[in-house]
Amino acid sequence: MDYAAKEKDADFLMNQVFKVQQNWSQIEAYQEFSEELVRAVVAEGGRLATEVMAPLNEVGDAHGCQLNDGEVTTPPGFKEAFAQITEGGWLGLTGNPAFGGQGMPKSLAGLIEEMFWAANSSLFLYGSLTVGACLSIDAHGSAEQKQTYLEKLYSGQWTGAMALTESHAGTDLGMMRTKAEPQADGSYRITGTKIFITSGEHDMAENIVHLTLARIVDGPKGTKGISLFIVPKFVPNADGSLGPRNGWSSGSLEHKMGINGSATSVINYDGARGFLLGEEHQGLAAMFTMMNYERLSVGLQGLGAGDLAYQHSARYAQDRIQGRSATGAQHPDKEADSLLVHPDVRRMLLTQRAYVEGCRAFAFFAGMQLDEAKHMGDERAERFGQLLTPVVKAFLTDKGLEGAVMAQQILGGHGYVKEWGVEQIVRDARIAQIYEGANGIQALDLAGRKVVRDGGKTLKELLQVLADFELDAGHAPAVSEAFERLRRVTDSMIARSNEDANLPGAVSADFLDLVGMTLCAWAWGVMAQRAGDDDFGVAKKQTARFFFARLLPRTVGLEQGLMADSDVLMDMPEALFSA
Amino acid sequence: MDYAAKEKDADFLMNQVFKVQQNWSQIEAYQEFSEELVRAVVAEGGRLATEVMAPLNEVGDAHGCQLNDGEVTTPPGFKEAFAQITEGGWLGLTGNPAFGGQGMPKSLAGLIEEMFWAANSSLFLYGSLTVGACLSIDAHGSAEQKQTYLEKLYSGQWTGAMALTESHAGTDLGMMRTKAEPQADGSYRITGTKIFITSGEHDMAENIVHLTLARIVDGPKGTKGISLFIVPKFVPNADGSLGPRNGWSSGSLEHKMGINGSATSVINYDGARGFLLGEEHQGLAAMFTMMNYERLSVGLQGLGAGDLAYQHSARYAQDRIQGRSATGAQHPDKEADSLLVHPDVRRMLLTQRAYVEGCRAFAFFAGMQLDEAKHMGDERAERFGQLLTPVVKAFLTDKGLEGAVMAQQILGGHGYVKEWGVEQIVRDARIAQIYEGANGIQALDLAGRKVVRDGGKTLKELLQVLADFELDAGHAPAVSEAFERLRRVTDSMIARSNEDANLPGAVSADFLDLVGMTLCAWAWGVMAQRAGDDDFGVAKKQTARFFFARLLPRTVGLEQGLMADSDVLMDMPEALFSA
Repeated sequence: MDYAAKEKDADFLMNQVFKVQQNWSQIEAYQEFSEELVRAVVAEGGRLATEVMAPLNEVGDAHGCQLNDGEVTTPPGFKEAFAQITEGGWLGLTGNPAFGGQGMPKSLAGLIEEMFWAANSSLFLYGSLTVGACLSIDAHGSAEQKQTYLEKLYSGQWTGAMALTESHAGTDLGMMRTKAEPQADGSYRITGTKIFITSGEHDMAENIVHLTLARIVDGPKGTKGISLFIVPKFVPNADGSLGPRNGWSSGSLEHKMGINGSATSVINYDGARGFLLGEEHQGLAAMFTMMNYERLSVGLQGLGAGDLAYQHSARYAQDRIQGRSATGAQHPDKEADSLLVHPDVRRMLLTQRAYVEGCRAFAFFAGMQLDEAKHMGDERAERFGQLLTPVVKAFLTDKGLEGAVMAQQILGGHGYVKEWGVEQIVRDARIAQIYEGANGIQALDLAGRKVVRDGGKTLKELLQVLADFELDAGHAPAVSEAFERLRRVTDSMIARSNEDANLPGAVSADFLDLVGMTLCAWAWGVMAQRAGDDDFGVAKKQTARFFFARLLPRTVGLEQGLMADSDVLMDMPEALFSA
Repeated sequence: MDYAAKEKDADFLMNQVFKVQQNWSQIEAYQEFSEELVRAVVAEGGRLATEVMAPLNEVGDAHGCQLNDGEVTTPPGFKEAFAQITEGGWLGLTGNPAFGGQGMPKSLAGLIEEMFWAANSSLFLYGSLTVGACLSIDAHGSAEQKQTYLEKLYSGQWTGAMALTESHAGTDLGMMRTKAEPQADGSYRITGTKIFITSGEHDMAENIVHLTLARIVDGPKGTKGISLFIVPKFVPNADGSLGPRNGWSSGSLEHKMGINGSATSVINYDGARGFLLGEEHQGLAAMFTMMNYERLSVGLQGLGAGDLAYQHSARYAQDRIQGRSATGAQHPDKEADSLLVHPDVRRMLLTQRAYVEGCRAFAFFAGMQLDEAKHMGDERAERFGQLLTPVVKAFLTDKGLEGAVMAQQILGGHGYVKEWGVEQIVRDARIAQIYEGANGIQALDLAGRKVVRDGGKTLKELLQVLADFELDAGHAPAVSEAFERLRRVTDSMIARSNEDANLPGAVSADFLDLVGMTLCAWAWGVMAQRAGDDDFGVAKKQTARFFFARLLPRTVGLEQGLMADSDVLMDMPEALFSA
């Protein structure tokens, strides 16, 4: 499926909008990442995305994965393409340099990840789970574990997977039943069944390293009794070579709506050998190191899907002639005008684009917070990163699906048939709202844990920092108004939560939406100010204008709806949901 | 896939909310449709939907249709189920009694159609196209054509299809190339290729009657030169028996995102014999008779999908235990509380439900307008029906997809895998926004042709009529406010359209959304007033309360966005959509 990497947009964000070189110059570990080097990295990532990954996107959907005798076969070409990704060192982009990682900024890596997701989300899933596993091992592993696993994972010789979900316990990890029995040699015997395990079994690497949540027998009940284990497919020998096949297997593959090129397994652990990662009973904390990365990354998956869909529908609208302009024929020499003469087609294109570019900007800003927290020990940046993570995950994936659906609409009937590829984007994008914590969970995390719990302190600090950016004069009042609106809603939500324990959950989804819209408004205010007068800049300014006139007003309605208390939801008796 | 027919809701709308017996008693043709008879019809329709059609919904998706040597095979069981639908006379429900139809009200038929769509949209497509073809033949056919075709179509011995779209000309019918050459015997020779032909070829009936748009050679250019032809698969002999196989064939089947049980063909007309239906060059008018019915019906398809999705997700939320209430354990005896303790899950369920039930009510009202226009010669009801048709088509299908996506979200990962069936609802529902005039076309029809063109007269008359209904006292002010908002926006849109030819198209989608929301508000105001104090009534009142508190506020944002002129869309240079 054709996809153009957005190198120019990456450059614009890094060098015009956020001037990252100024920040990076203050970070010891980033000294070598000059503008030139970074540009070369983005260009090469873009080449890989467009030339190697994108051509396999439809192939992956059409072929899917096969399970025979416990062995999973990935779609034709996936193995070779994955080898090109791993050989280039792309899985270790932000990895620990002590073990072969490249130590690049997360903000930069996000721009590359977006391209990989856009080009072929099924294929990149084999990589993204590996990156997440590395983060967890790097943060919580023993020296020996890091030595054993990190280099082989960064290089893609081995890949990673996370095994959390059980069929009766999705979001509610406290109900988990998979058990871990301590063995004399310090390892554990893992027994249980996990479902929905992305990249849990496949044929792209010689070893697959599961990070598996399980309950140590006789440990505390609920989430406090859960620990995280490294459960490799082949247990490594002391010299790092592959040892015996471990006691787990892929029982079946899930048949899904989309991301068919990604193997999603049911994994049966039948007394498999596992090695504790981090502390006993601290599994959730260790797992969240991985999860937080994955959440940001999955947000970028939504963003990538949205951009891919935009590109397809914009090209279609430019090429397709149909109907005449309401102001008279624009191309009288042709049988009809282009679809672009129709205001409603433009509305759909500009909506897609305004969200893609606005979201890309604030996701990049979120990445910068993670970089500053990691390398400058900046406690506030740490909190900003935690606040922004659920917004990036949920808002970007919501808008990704919305955008893909709009793109499909622009293609009309061609959008519904497989031949044109856009319906695949919709099916593929849909998962991003569900996995790595469904978007409802993200919203509750934001409203409850990240805002109500600290009395809105971090959110207001963030708004203060954002207000210090130079904004386009024409749009600055609208951004201020949006900030004021968000402050009002935040204060009201916090105040009412004292009396109404269900309030954060009742308003969470709309609250997250409001935060996302407000961040988009800010991003467009900044981008319009930094855009030049060339075509690229004019497109930015026009899109900003559209965003403020047509999309931001949604927040006025959001505010009003957010004033309702939880009783309008909770008063309905449970039984009446089927009356 | 489990589906419960909503007989009680049908009864509530007919007898409590709209008291249709009062209207029907004034219509000669409806004298026999007593409350009892109608209830029996709804019950039997519901039985057919739940027991015969619903069990084949997943089968249809999994098997799809096959094309071998020009013959299309439908999924296992479809033929037998379709025979049960046709034998019961369900395709002739609203048909002309002079030719074996049952002459029932369109408003009543809509309630049945919704059930059929919900139970199995792929299967019902074979019927719905037949009903549309009958309408066109009944309205525009010669006595001989009616005699030849209607009875056999009403009985489902033959089925219908409409052939409009060509690959280069979707919405823009003026670019159509299929040609019709007059023959000495008064027939025409039809040559060309049509795509996306639903039920164009299949194995469920002995004959398939295409209504095909084509251009009579040497006729006027553009849409003015288009005529409508009856092009049967087997040309009937004078005695009504099947004559020779006609010169058209199914060249291929489309591979679609969903509705896989419905055969969508490319049809090649290779000098096929066609018979003019209606006047020369008046094809669009004749076709729109069918199209307007199909548009209402497709709206009900969206509604059915939304209800089916709601039922699945409500059942899941009731059965699934996960997490604890924010106010403390509600089911301390169980390992976890039901999903229904979580406010955000309730928000998603109530959102789905508020739209399903609100839309069902105003779609029923739209059906009543068609009945009154047809049988009482009520010119105003005719205009109301025309105004409401695009709203029913677009708003109900938009909300149908939205609802299905929400249902999927409630199921989490289970919503993404095929096993649970909800992802199929999303894929199936998606087409309804696209076919029979994409929703953007509906919006332009509403804003431009139905509102701006008559200076808002019909819309304002409608609001006046709606205001005369007795509303729940608590919600009446919100309904008034919504009406005022819609009047303001309408006046502004009309005034600005004088200067800005692109304005109707620029605001059309949001305008249609605003009209749909306003009609929902009115419907909830009326339903809350008529609801009793039993479980059914309490559920209605609680859902109304949720709608007014959480959903209606969206219209405040819509109004503000609708104040933008078309320049925010049109100023972007065409080339920059890819910059």
